[in-house]
Amino acid sequence: MLAILHPNISRDSQAYRETMHFLENLPGVTLRLHEVQGATQKLTEVYLLGETKSLDKDEIAALPAVERAIRISQEYRILGRHLDDLRQNGFTYNGVTFDQSNLNIFAGLCAVDNQEHVDMMMRSLSEHGQECTRMGAYKPRTNPYSFQGHGKGCLPWVFETAGKYGIRVIAMEITHESHIEEIDNCLEKLGRPTGVMLQVGTRNTQNFELLKAIGRQQTYPVLFKRGFGITLNESLNAAEYLATEGNAKVIFCLRGMKTEAGQPHRNMVDFAHVPTVKRLTRMPVCVDPSHSVGTRDRAPDGLLEVTHATAQGVIAGANMVLADFHPRPEKALVDGPQALQMDELPAFLADIQLCHETWKKRQQLYRRLEGAE
Amino acid sequence: MLAILHPNISRDSQAYRETMHFLENLPGVTLRLHEVQGATQKLTEVYLLGETKSLDKDEIAALPAVERAIRISQEYRILGRHLDDLRQNGFTYNGVTFDQSNLNIFAGLCAVDNQEHVDMMMRSLSEHGQECTRMGAYKPRTNPYSFQGHGKGCLPWVFETAGKYGIRVIAMEITHESHIEEIDNCLEKLGRPTGVMLQVGTRNTQNFELLKAIGRQQTYPVLFKRGFGITLNESLNAAEYLATEGNAKVIFCLRGMKTEAGQPHRNMVDFAHVPTVKRLTRMPVCVDPSHSVGTRDRAPDGLLEVTHATAQGVIAGANMVLADFHPRPEKALVDGPQALQMDELPAFLADIQLCHETWKKRQQLYRRLEGAE
Amino acid sequence: MLAILHPNISRDSQAYRETMHFLENLPGVTLRLHEVQGATQKLTEVYLLGETKSLDKDEIAALPAVERAIRISQEYRILGRHLDDLRQNGFTYNGVTFDQSNLNIFAGLCAVDNQEHVDMMMRSLSEHGQECTRMGAYKPRTNPYSFQGHGKGCLPWVFETAGKYGIRVIAMEITHESHIEEIDNCLEKLGRPTGVMLQVGTRNTQNFELLKAIGRQQTYPVLFKRGFGITLNESLNAAEYLATEGNAKVIFCLRGMKTEAGQPHRNMVDFAHVPTVKRLTRMPVCVDPSHSVGTRDRAPDGLLEVTHATAQGVIAGANMVLADFHPRPEKALVDGPQALQMDELPAFLADIQLCHETWKKRQQLYRRLEGAE
Amino acid sequence: MLAILHPNISRDSQAYRETMHFLENLPGVTLRLHEVQGATQKLTEVYLLGETKSLDKDEIAALPAVERAIRISQEYRILGRHLDDLRQNGFTYNGVTFDQSNLNIFAGLCAVDNQEHVDMMMRSLSEHGQECTRMGAYKPRTNPYSFQGHGKGCLPWVFETAGKYGIRVIAMEITHESHIEEIDNCLEKLGRPTGVMLQVGTRNTQNFELLKAIGRQQTYPVLFKRGFGITLNESLNAAEYLATEGNAKVIFCLRGMKTEAGQPHRNMVDFAHVPTVKRLTRMPVCVDPSHSVGTRDRAPDGLLEVTHATAQGVIAGANMVLADFHPRPEKALVDGPQALQMDELPAFLADIQLCHETWKKRQQLYRRLEGAE
Repeated sequence: MLAILHPNISRDSQAYRETMHFLENLPGVTLRLHEVQGATQKLTEVYLLGETKSLDKDEIAALPAVERAIRISQEYRILGRHLDDLRQNGFTYNGVTFDQSNLNIFAGLCAVDNQEHVDMMMRSLSEHGQECTRMGAYKPRTNPYSFQGHGKGCLPWVFETAGKYGIRVIAMEITHESHIEEIDNCLEKLGRPTGVMLQVGTRNTQNFELLKAIGRQQTYPVLFKRGFGITLNESLNAAEYLATEGNAKVIFCLRGMKTEAGQPHRNMVDFAHVPTVKRLTRMPVCVDPSHSVGTRDRAPDGLLEVTHATAQGVIAGANMVLADFHPRPEKALVDGPQALQMDELPAFLADIQLCHETWKKRQQLYRRLEGAE
Repeated sequence: MLAILHPNISRDSQAYRETMHFLENLPGVTLRLHEVQGATQKLTEVYLLGETKSLDKDEIAALPAVERAIRISQEYRILGRHLDDLRQNGFTYNGVTFDQSNLNIFAGLCAVDNQEHVDMMMRSLSEHGQECTRMGAYKPRTNPYSFQGHGKGCLPWVFETAGKYGIRVIAMEITHESHIEEIDNCLEKLGRPTGVMLQVGTRNTQNFELLKAIGRQQTYPVLFKRGFGITLNESLNAAEYLATEGNAKVIFCLRGMKTEAGQPHRNMVDFAHVPTVKRLTRMPVCVDPSHSVGTRDRAPDGLLEVTHATAQGVIAGANMVLADFHPRPEKALVDGPQALQMDELPAFLADIQLCHETWKKRQQLYRRLEGAE
Repeated sequence: MLAILHPNISRDSQAYRETMHFLENLPGVTLRLHEVQGATQKLTEVYLLGETKSLDKDEIAALPAVERAIRISQEYRILGRHLDDLRQNGFTYNGVTFDQSNLNIFAGLCAVDNQEHVDMMMRSLSEHGQECTRMGAYKPRTNPYSFQGHGKGCLPWVFETAGKYGIRVIAMEITHESHIEEIDNCLEKLGRPTGVMLQVGTRNTQNFELLKAIGRQQTYPVLFKRGFGITLNESLNAAEYLATEGNAKVIFCLRGMKTEAGQPHRNMVDFAHVPTVKRLTRMPVCVDPSHSVGTRDRAPDGLLEVTHATAQGVIAGANMVLADFHPRPEKALVDGPQALQMDELPAFLADIQLCHETWKKRQQLYRRLEGAE
Repeated sequence: MLAILHPNISRDSQAYRETMHFLENLPGVTLRLHEVQGATQKLTEVYLLGETKSLDKDEIAALPAVERAIRISQEYRILGRHLDDLRQNGFTYNGVTFDQSNLNIFAGLCAVDNQEHVDMMMRSLSEHGQECTRMGAYKPRTNPYSFQGHGKGCLPWVFETAGKYGIRVIAMEITHESHIEEIDNCLEKLGRPTGVMLQVGTRNTQNFELLKAIGRQQTYPVLFKRGFGITLNESLNAAEYLATEGNAKVIFCLRGMKTEAGQPHRNMVDFAHVPTVKRLTRMPVCVDPSHSVGTRDRAPDGLLEVTHATAQGVIAGANMVLADFHPRPEKALVDGPQALQMDELPAFLADIQLCHETWKKRQQLYRRLEGAE
C-alpha cells in the first residue's frame, strides 16, 4: 500500500502527526518514506510494508494528511506501475526532460581516449543540435590486463569540452561509489558546465552496494543497464534498490542478452521488451544498439544492422538511444570496430526521428481503428 | 576458393610445381587435393581452406596449372548470398510474389477447429483485401495427450472455403512426409481452389528426413521456421537441406528463441535477425510475432506488445508476417489466449503497411544522407 | 487414474466385461489400453483419461478385473513414476536386462566407417566381456554437405560381425521410420545374429511422427536422447509419445545441453539429472559422456575429463553408458578427435565398475547412518 | 613470460639490480611484481607483459637473479596453469591446507539468524571433527525488500562461538569492501578465535572494484563463486583481478548456472567443470551443491539429489564442498527448504569421504591400466 500525502504538507502539522501516528501503529506494518522534490512542490510518499493485505484502501485514503492511497504489488514498489496508478513518470535534469513519451539521443564515445576525439565528437553533436552524449571514463573490462579507462584524470577536460559545446547531460558509467564524489567534485570545481547521468553497467546490475550508494544521492539521475544473464524481473528488482534509497530518477537500458541464440550479433537484441518495461514500471526506457548488435554488418537494403536494431527500439516507443560513435574507429581503445562514424550521424539522427514520429502515428492509428470493426 | 587444374596435368611438370609452390606459400591457407579419375582423364581439384577472403580469384585463375577458380563459401551454398552473387532472390507462387523487398501478411488460425471459424476468418481477410492466411491442420504438441489437430479430415472444407474467398496461399504446417501427398491429393481433387505453403515447425527444424522429402518436390514453396534452441547458423544449414534436394523456394521464419531471457514473453523475440538473414541468404524473411510474444499484454501507449513486435520486424525489412487471429479466442483449441481478435485486424493491417512504408523511407533517407557529412 | 488388471485376464471373462462396462460409462472419462507382455504373463493396464479427479481409487480397485488402481499425475502417464506406484521398471531384451538398478556399457563407433574398424572394435569389446556396443549407420548432420553415414548398406556386415563376437545389443540411431524395416529385414535375413536398440537423436527428440512410428513396434527397445535445447519436462513428454503408441521399453539418455555455459566442453554436461529422471519416471537412465564433453582434455590428476564425466553419471546411479571409441580416431569420419582409444578401454571399464560399486556402497551408507543422529 | 627469482633474493643485491635493469629495458615490455610469502621463504615472481612473443625464454632464465622462466599464455597469467608450469598450487590458512589434491568440507548456515542456531550448528560440526563452516552475515538479495542479513552486528557472537568449538575457518560472503575491515576489526578485538575466508557471490563475480579491494589484502583467502550467467572463461578472468592486486589465495567455486536447462533444479549443476578448472588454473575447486540443486527431492535409491550432486563433484576431484545445513530448516530466514538437516550430517560426511577415496582409487586404476592394452 502506498499513501501519497498532500503536496508540501508540513511535518509539524496536526494532520501529518495524526496520520503518521495511525500508520505507525498498524500491526505488522512498517513504514518507508520517500520524498519527491518537483519543480514547484515536494511530494511525500509513505510506503506501507509487511502485512498490508487486510488494510482498507479507503480508510487509509481518508486519513487527514493523505491525498491518495494506491494498492501496490509486492515487486518494484516505487518504480513499478501498479493497478490504477496514475502517478507521473519521468523527470527533468539540467534542462533535459526524460519520460515515457519523449526521446533523447546519447551518441558518443564508449571510452574517452584523448582530448582531440572528445572535441571532435562533441562539436559534431553540437552542430546537429544534440545536448546529450555518452563518455566512458571508468571502464570495467573482462580481462584485468585490458585498458581500464582514463578514470578521474580525464574528467576536467571532458566536462569543460561539454560546456564549450552546450552538452547538458553526459551518460558516464561508474563502477565504484567513490566515482560519484570524483565526478561531483570535478563538476563543482568547474562551475558545473554540464551534467552527468550515472550509468550502471551490466556487470554491476546486481552489485547492490553500488546501487545503494548511488541511490543515496539525488543530484544525478541514473542510467541502469539490464543484467545480460538474469531475468527481466531480477533486473527490475535490482533497479528498485536505487529507489528504496531515495533516487527514483532512473532510466532502464536494454543492451542485449548473453546467449548464443543472438549470434552472429554480439548479444541477443532484447528491444521487444521496450513496451514490457514501460508496462511494468514507470521508468523511461533506453536502448543500446551498439552493444547489442556489436558489428557493422550491412543488410542488402544498404542499412547497417545496428541502425535496424535502433529503429526497432524506437518504433516500439523507446525513450532514449545510447550509441557508440567514434571519429576514428580504427584508433578507438575500446569497441572501435562496432562504432558508428561521424559522417553517419546525420542519417542516424534523421532515422531515429522518422521512427519516433511513426511510433506516434501508430498510436493515432490504433486509437482510430481499433474496435471499429 | 576452389582451383580446378588442367586435366591430366603431370605432377612433374614445371606448371604444376610453380602453381603448388605459390599456393602452398599463401599465408594462413591450407590446401586439400581431391583427384577425380574419369574414364578418359584425371581432374585435380585444389581446395584452398582458411584465410581465403583476401585472395584474388583472378590471380589464382592465372596460375599456370589452373584452369578455373571458383569462390565458394562453405555454408549455405545454394540458399546463401555469396560475394559477387547477383542471382535473384524470391519466387512467385499461385500469383503471389515473395522476395526480399515486398511484404505479405498471413493472418489466420493457429489450429483449424471448425468450419464456422474458418469461414469467419477467411471472409474477414477477404473483406480486407488479403490473399494469404495460415491454417493449422496437423499440430505437433509437446504433450501427447493434447489435441493434435484435425489432420487431413479438415483439408477439403478448408481448401474450399479458401477458394470461395479468393485466398491464394495457405501456410500449413506438416509434420510427416505423407502430409504432402494428402494435401496434394485433396487440392487436385477439388480443382486447386487455393495454394499451400508447406510449413516446417521449430520442433522439426533439424528433422532432416522431413526436409529432404519436402525438398524433393517443387510444387509447394516452404515456410521454414527457425529452431528455437539452436544457433542461427545451424538453422540456416538445415534450410539448405531443402535446397540440396531441389526446392529453393524457401521463406525463413523468425519465431522467437527458447530462453528465459525472453520472459515475460513466451519466447525471446529475435527479429533483430531480419536483416541478418537477408544478408546471409537470399531467402525472404518472415516474422511470427504471435508465438514469439505469446501474450496479449498491452503497453501504456495503448498498443499490444505483440503489435509492437510486429512493427519491429517490419521496420527492419521483414517480408512476411505470420499472425494468429481467432474469431472467438476463448474457444480456440490451441493458443487461444494469445490470438488477435477480428476487430483488431484493420488496425493491425494498417500498422504493418505504415511500418513497411517507413522502412522504404528509411532506405531513401540513408541513400540521401549517408556519407554526406 | 490407472487400473492394472489381473495378470492374464481373458477379454472374454465376465470380470473383464463388467469392469470395462463400468469404466466405459464413467462420465467425461476416456480409456486407453496398454498391454505389457512379460516373460511369463501378460499385463493389461487401463488408463483413465479426462475428468478423473473425482474418481474414487478404492472403488476402481474393487472392480472384479482390477488388481490395483494408481492415481497418476497428468504428465508422463505411462513412463512416469507416480505416487504409491510400485510398478516394476525396466525390461529384458535379447538376454540383456535394463532397469534402474543395474548398469550396461555401450562402447563403440559413433559412425560406422569400414569393416576393419568394426571388427577391431567388436573383437576388443568381446575380449573384455562386453555384450553391447554402439554403431552409427544413419548419421544426421548439421551441414547437408557432411558425410551422412553408410546407411543400410553397412547393416549386413555390422550385424554379422556382432554375431561373430557375441554382441547381443547394438545401439543404432535411426532418423526415418523406414530404417526400422531396413534393420528388421536385415536381421531377419541373417537369422538375427544380434539385437538392435533404436536410438532417437537429440535433433529428433520432438519429431513426434518418428516417435509414433517407433512406438508402434515392440520388437526393438528405444534409446531416447534428451533434446539439447528444450526443458527436461518437454523431453520427458516427448518420450511419452513412444509409450502412448505401445512401446514402453525406453531408456532415457542424457547427452549434454546446448548452452555456452558449458564451454570449453562441447555441451553442458547434465548428469545431475540422472537421479531426477529416475525419480520422475520409471525409465533406466543412460549417460553419453562423449557428446557431452566432446574433447580429450586431461585433468592434472591424469584422467580425461570425459572419464570424469562418466564417473559423475555412474556415481549418481546411471544405468547405461554410451561412449565413442575408435581404433584409429585420426581416421574417423565423424567426431574422431573426441573418441576414446582402444588401449583406454580396460581402464574405462574398470573405472565404471568401481563407481557403480561405490554407488551401491553409498546407498548402504545412507541406509545405515541417516536419521541415526 | 614469467621470471621466478631465486628464493629470498635481496632487492639490494647486485644480481637483483642487474636482472631488473635488463628486464625494465626490454622494448614494449612492462613488469609486474608479485610476492608469494611461504612458510619458510619469500618468492618473487616478475611478470613480463606486452610484446613478449619474441623474448627468448632461455635468455631470461639465464639472468643472475632468475631461477626459472615460464612462458605463460595471455589469460589468467597468475592463477593459470601454463605449459611446463610446475609451480605449486594451494595454500595454508589458519592451520587448514587448501590445494588441488585434498578436500575440506564447509557445512553451515546460509544465513546467520540467531545465536542458538549458530551454536547448534557449530557444536554438531565439532562433534564430527569438522574445523570449517559457512556462515552468512551479509546477504545480497534479489529483492530489496527481503531480509539482508544481520551484517556486522552478528560477527562477535559468530566468531566467539566458532572459537568455542574449534572452528578454524568460516566462509563468509562480503558484498562491500568495508566488510573486510569490519571482519578484521572484530577478529582482532576478540583475539582471533577463528579465521575467515572471504566469499565473493555470483552477483559480484564481475564487480571488479570489490575484487580489487579484496585482492589488495593478503590476510584472508578468497572463495570466489563463478558467475551464473557468464562463460567459464569470463569468470576465470574475473578471479584473476584478485591475483593482479596481490592475493592469489583463491578457491574457485562452482555453484550452478542460470539456465532453464537445469530445471527442475534451481540452477544447472556445472560440476563437470571441476577437472576443467583444475586443468586451466592452479586454484583448488569448490562445489556448492545446495545452491546448484536447490531442492530436497529424493531419488528412488533413497538419496537426496543434492547428495548425488555432491558425490559427482567429489568423484571428479573437487577440493572443497560448501553445503547449507540448518538445525530448523522451517525457521531459516533464507533458503531454508533446501537446507540439509543435522541428522543428515554424519551420512553426508561419510559419503563425501567415500567418494574422495574412490577418486584416489580411480587415479591409481588409470595409472595401472592405461596404455596397458
